[in-house]
Amino acid sequence: MTAPTPSLLVVSAHAGDFVWRAGGAIAAAAQRGERVTVVCLSYGERGESASQWLAGKSLDEIKAVRQSEAEAAAAALGADIEFLDLGDYPLVESQESVHRLVDVFRRSHPTEVLTHPLADPYNGDHPAAARMALQARVLAQAIGVANSDGSLPGRDDIIGAPPVFFFEPHQPEQCGFVPNVLLDITDAFDRKRAAMECLPAQKHMWEYYTHLAIRRGVQVKRNAGPNLGLPHETMGEAYMRYFPQVTGELR
Amino acid sequence: MTAPTPSLLVVSAHAGDFVWRAGGAIAAAAQRGERVTVVCLSYGERGESASQWLAGKSLDEIKAVRQSEAEAAAAALGADIEFLDLGDYPLVESQESVHRLVDVFRRSHPTEVLTHPLADPYNGDHPAAARMALQARVLAQAIGVANSDGSLPGRDDIIGAPPVFFFEPHQPEQCGFVPNVLLDITDAFDRKRAAMECLPAQKHMWEYYTHLAIRRGVQVKRNAGPNLGLPHETMGEAYMRYFPQVTGELR
Amino acid sequence: MTAPTPSLLVVSAHAGDFVWRAGGAIAAAAQRGERVTVVCLSYGERGESASQWLAGKSLDEIKAVRQSEAEAAAAALGADIEFLDLGDYPLVESQESVHRLVDVFRRSHPTEVLTHPLADPYNGDHPAAARMALQARVLAQAIGVANSDGSLPGRDDIIGAPPVFFFEPHQPEQCGFVPNVLLDITDAFDRKRAAMECLPAQKHMWEYYTHLAIRRGVQVKRNAGPNLGLPHETMGEAYMRYFPQVTGELR
Amino acid sequence: MTAPTPSLLVVSAHAGDFVWRAGGAIAAAAQRGERVTVVCLSYGERGESASQWLAGKSLDEIKAVRQSEAEAAAAALGADIEFLDLGDYPLVESQESVHRLVDVFRRSHPTEVLTHPLADPYNGDHPAAARMALQARVLAQAIGVANSDGSLPGRDDIIGAPPVFFFEPHQPEQCGFVPNVLLDITDAFDRKRAAMECLPAQKHMWEYYTHLAIRRGVQVKRNAGPNLGLPHETMGEAYMRYFPQVTGELR
Amino acid sequence: MTAPTPSLLVVSAHAGDFVWRAGGAIAAAAQRGERVTVVCLSYGERGESASQWLAGKSLDEIKAVRQSEAEAAAAALGADIEFLDLGDYPLVESQESVHRLVDVFRRSHPTEVLTHPLADPYNGDHPAAARMALQARVLAQAIGVANSDGSLPGRDDIIGAPPVFFFEPHQPEQCGFVPNVLLDITDAFDRKRAAMECLPAQKHMWEYYTHLAIRRGVQVKRNAGPNLGLPHETMGEAYMRYFPQVTGELR
Amino acid sequence: MTAPTPSLLVVSAHAGDFVWRAGGAIAAAAQRGERVTVVCLSYGERGESASQWLAGKSLDEIKAVRQSEAEAAAAALGADIEFLDLGDYPLVESQESVHRLVDVFRRSHPTEVLTHPLADPYNGDHPAAARMALQARVLAQAIGVANSDGSLPGRDDIIGAPPVFFFEPHQPEQCGFVPNVLLDITDAFDRKRAAMECLPAQKHMWEYYTHLAIRRGVQVKRNAGPNLGLPHETMGEAYMRYFPQVTGELR
Repeated sequence: MTAPTPSLLVVSAHAGDFVWRAGGAIAAAAQRGERVTVVCLSYGERGESASQWLAGKSLDEIKAVRQSEAEAAAAALGADIEFLDLGDYPLVESQESVHRLVDVFRRSHPTEVLTHPLADPYNGDHPAAARMALQARVLAQAIGVANSDGSLPGRDDIIGAPPVFFFEPHQPEQCGFVPNVLLDITDAFDRKRAAMECLPAQKHMWEYYTHLAIRRGVQVKRNAGPNLGLPHETMGEAYMRYFPQVTGELR
Repeated sequence: MTAPTPSLLVVSAHAGDFVWRAGGAIAAAAQRGERVTVVCLSYGERGESASQWLAGKSLDEIKAVRQSEAEAAAAALGADIEFLDLGDYPLVESQESVHRLVDVFRRSHPTEVLTHPLADPYNGDHPAAARMALQARVLAQAIGVANSDGSLPGRDDIIGAPPVFFFEPHQPEQCGFVPNVLLDITDAFDRKRAAMECLPAQKHMWEYYTHLAIRRGVQVKRNAGPNLGLPHETMGEAYMRYFPQVTGELR
Repeated sequence: MTAPTPSLLVVSAHAGDFVWRAGGAIAAAAQRGERVTVVCLSYGERGESASQWLAGKSLDEIKAVRQSEAEAAAAALGADIEFLDLGDYPLVESQESVHRLVDVFRRSHPTEVLTHPLADPYNGDHPAAARMALQARVLAQAIGVANSDGSLPGRDDIIGAPPVFFFEPHQPEQCGFVPNVLLDITDAFDRKRAAMECLPAQKHMWEYYTHLAIRRGVQVKRNAGPNLGLPHETMGEAYMRYFPQVTGELR
Repeated sequence: MTAPTPSLLVVSAHAGDFVWRAGGAIAAAAQRGERVTVVCLSYGERGESASQWLAGKSLDEIKAVRQSEAEAAAAALGADIEFLDLGDYPLVESQESVHRLVDVFRRSHPTEVLTHPLADPYNGDHPAAARMALQARVLAQAIGVANSDGSLPGRDDIIGAPPVFFFEPHQPEQCGFVPNVLLDITDAFDRKRAAMECLPAQKHMWEYYTHLAIRRGVQVKRNAGPNLGLPHETMGEAYMRYFPQVTGELR
Repeated sequence: MTAPTPSLLVVSAHAGDFVWRAGGAIAAAAQRGERVTVVCLSYGERGESASQWLAGKSLDEIKAVRQSEAEAAAAALGADIEFLDLGDYPLVESQESVHRLVDVFRRSHPTEVLTHPLADPYNGDHPAAARMALQARVLAQAIGVANSDGSLPGRDDIIGAPPVFFFEPHQPEQCGFVPNVLLDITDAFDRKRAAMECLPAQKHMWEYYTHLAIRRGVQVKRNAGPNLGLPHETMGEAYMRYFPQVTGELR
Repeated sequence: MTAPTPSLLVVSAHAGDFVWRAGGAIAAAAQRGERVTVVCLSYGERGESASQWLAGKSLDEIKAVRQSEAEAAAAALGADIEFLDLGDYPLVESQESVHRLVDVFRRSHPTEVLTHPLADPYNGDHPAAARMALQARVLAQAIGVANSDGSLPGRDDIIGAPPVFFFEPHQPEQCGFVPNVLLDITDAFDRKRAAMECLPAQKHMWEYYTHLAIRRGVQVKRNAGPNLGLPHETMGEAYMRYFPQVTGELR
């Protein structure tokens, strides 16, 4: 047997979520030469584009702006990106949508999956995205489940059981988000910052998420212990692993 | 900076606990050439030696039997072992005992710590051992906390912040034990079985814990996914990581 | 800036729920001169009208009786009331229904929202009502989300982020209902009792909910402490605040 | 008043689930002369029949095989069985399906209900089945809720409030499954084993679930205490009671 | 083997707790001819006797009053009672006290144990009593654990693993008290009321706990279902079973 | 009856904790003219003074430095401060210490209490302080509980039931800290910053806690809603209310 080719799949409810919440993990994977696929279920056109609605933009114009910004950010991180355009506020779960996601899983063969956590009292689209991602991941494993065009998958199409990591919501404690993985993103932070700067409408968030990276970086150092000699300026991202870690060594 | 030398510390309430619950992790670490230290807080002389009390053995005789069996099991696993003889049923927490454990932490400089989970409605000694281990781990980090002989530690004596893993209790669901790490112990299982066989009074447990290893091995395979090609006879142990994992890669 | 005009919105799954569970809060707000709007998602015509079905009444007759009783109770409390007639047992969540609720939120501009808690193993309509209320509250905040007639909201139509309080279910401990707000309804209790007496089919509940008000009143006194000098006959209602309280003083 | 006639209803997501997870309870009830009805919501034709898909079988062929195996297993346990053929992977919840289940509840008048627990990160069909079973149980109690053919139920058609027991999922700790009932199935185990052997495609599970019965049997003995004198070979099944137990004696 | 003789042991932090919270269960057991032993760890002399302190009574006088009232209440329920006089506010846990409780367990050989739940933010003595009761129960099972006079127990002295039921605290939701057993005490309620009336200083509690019995009785009926034909005036008490129920039948 | 005089009591495990975690609440209360009493159970001399130990300072020297810094910070906030000097790492709970705290409660007659949350895997002194504060609060309410000098309290000495708020630990999600109160400290922040600057050894924390105040301020705005018109630079602190809020109005 050979180890599977690393492939990171990121399922994002809206066009910008992946940047603020998982930009470090994405950039780090890309820097290691791994393939990263971001799939945006919607553009966030209704719920996260207030200033553009106030400016009188049309729905299609708003979507177009959001898409091009997200594409720029993905490029800055080194990731591929695609859009399912399922609509937001609310992001409605449907079997058809889930099957389109099944196709994405079978096409990208992820070895790791990132998505939103399962609770968010402030934004129902986030847990809806997580539920769809988790359901698609299970369906994509079954050889008896057809692709979205009705064809049956071949033996190589079906996927394994990739670990799933929830990225950090805006108000973590209100979402039952208890980090059990702290990711050191020090080397990837410059790219994350560059990606954030591709989203000019949320300029006030650039500093906010830089401070959050410092804060999570302090926790990286605390939990690693002083003996590991991490640098003062360690930057971090927090994740919540959903399935048990499988390992050959306790570390 | 250089990575610290691997050193596994196992804090066990009674003389036999480490064998059934963590024998695989211990043997695997020893097989990799790492140092393993088992510290037994008591011999389990009152609470886990019913047959010997019924046979009319004295307290000292019972302790001696338990000690020699545990030493044989530790040897079979490749671990050092020591005994604090704090008494069991109940294992009473005291500041003096905790400070003796602080010494053990500073002497062994663990890079990983294994102990019991914090709840067990069936045996209060197990959570007491966990509380002492966790408290000693924190105290051993502080340069202002004296050793048990009253001397102040040197800069190299104080320890880092090693991760802590709780091993599996007898009735996991009743103890709030939700595994978040599944350890593949396939290659180490023969040594674990040999160590179990050093405990002849509990012969009925040999099969029981062999079946548990098969069961946890099935879960290793389920959570790893078919693509990893794990063998049919994968053996496993379940652990619960107490502090967030610190890592440079999401895997 | 000026403080928003107080406006209490109560989302009730069935026609009678708001009386038993939130009658005190409603009457107290009305007594303070505040506007109160009760919206009943259904009449409780199938699940809570057994005696009328047994008496051979038709569906329309049952709805009419339930409506007139609820209107009388609302009047006794000093509240406006409206009915969405979505059907009960089960109360089916749909996007259309949620958008009708969005209209209610935008029309009433609530400063506080009361509804059912999110779990109830005895009656699935209650959590369904809560989910719809919570979703509508978020959608009503977004300027990009259209009204139910397809028109876009104006800037003054969109609402803020009013706090949400869950009122007490019939078997609180089975519903994960842990009160974190105890409301003193002593001065409003007479009106609550009068409203209960508008529901003659459930006469046995009048005493039941009077005793519950005494019980929660005892807890009001316990948690306030003797120094506040609350009267012996303090009456109370229990609530569970869903979002963090925002305040300028810790009290 | 007379005690109701014992009647056990088992709601199973797929054709095989009831055998592995509740075979002991089913056989024990049948041995006591009680009526047992198993209702399989799907055949597990897509999600649990990988080997047959790989062998090139058609969907109808796979369903037929699954059905005949499940019928043989039910016969070995002494239970009636029926199939709703709602489809699996995913098992889609719909009001029509729930009303078909309402009919089953009204027809079988269960005094006890067994089904899956409400969470399972590995298989979304299991919690979907549980949600449908729980909703149908409540709807079947209401005289105002019509049968699936639109007719109104008679007074004797409506059911009481039977207790619900969740049976054990494959990875209990990951599903929030904390057993609060341990069932002694020693006398029924032979029939459970015979039923398992009716499912030849999963031969590797026979030993696995035999070992699980031994493991749960050890817990039966532990929690009963040595004074009850249970035999060494006690076999068990674990359940999670969803509603409070109603009793005249604390035992 | 023969079934053990029924014996109910009630561990009460203060002299009055067992009456309000478990009087129905005690009276019902006594009415069935079973032996009931109440052990009061303290008299509640400091924390629950404010009116007597205000009246200028001495510590010894207060203890004497509390003792005679509790003895009268126990007699009204049909129970034996004893007092360990460990002091209250705070009830201090010590190994000596626990060993005195071990003696009680070995003397009374309980088949069921009732005590306080493990959390109570309003009164630390209650969880302290529960912790001591639970620890003593485990120690009393071990033949290697000496009696409080230092003698070793005989084979018949050690106890089994009796189930433990927590009785209802004053503010259940704040104490993590989720009833999983609802006890029908209709036939025993007159004796409970008589016992309550043995405590004249808390006359205002007589009605309060009568209403609570009605409330829990309503829940008995709800969870039993209408088919069981329980009478309108069913009275109840709520309990929380700590260990899994062991049974031969799911009911 | 007259409302009690506002009095805020802050129970801090170590000399600096109150500044970082509750400085805003303290300064705001002082600005309103209310009395604030800070009681430091220890100086943090062993666990939080690493640099001074490394510099060869003696235990007494370290305590003196910590005391004078804490006094300066309290003065900057407008609070009184006292030190119980109970020792840290570990902070040992004892009945004598708790009774000294009872005296503090009776002397300060708090209308609100702030302390650490009940869990902290990184520092056992914090939950120990919380447990002592909570126990002392209950004991101080009882007229039968003597003062630490053995005298009985007078009627005016005993306290009511002041609400308790836990302030934010360093790693909130790991401590079960879910904020349910967000305090607007915008107007008090300058004083909090000034108090932080009284602690020169932890200069790197000044920015860290300024950023945290910004972050919690963003959450104040999010949960208040845009309609309240809070300024862009709103600063916040997060708290966790331990007992239910008692109120006459739902807000």
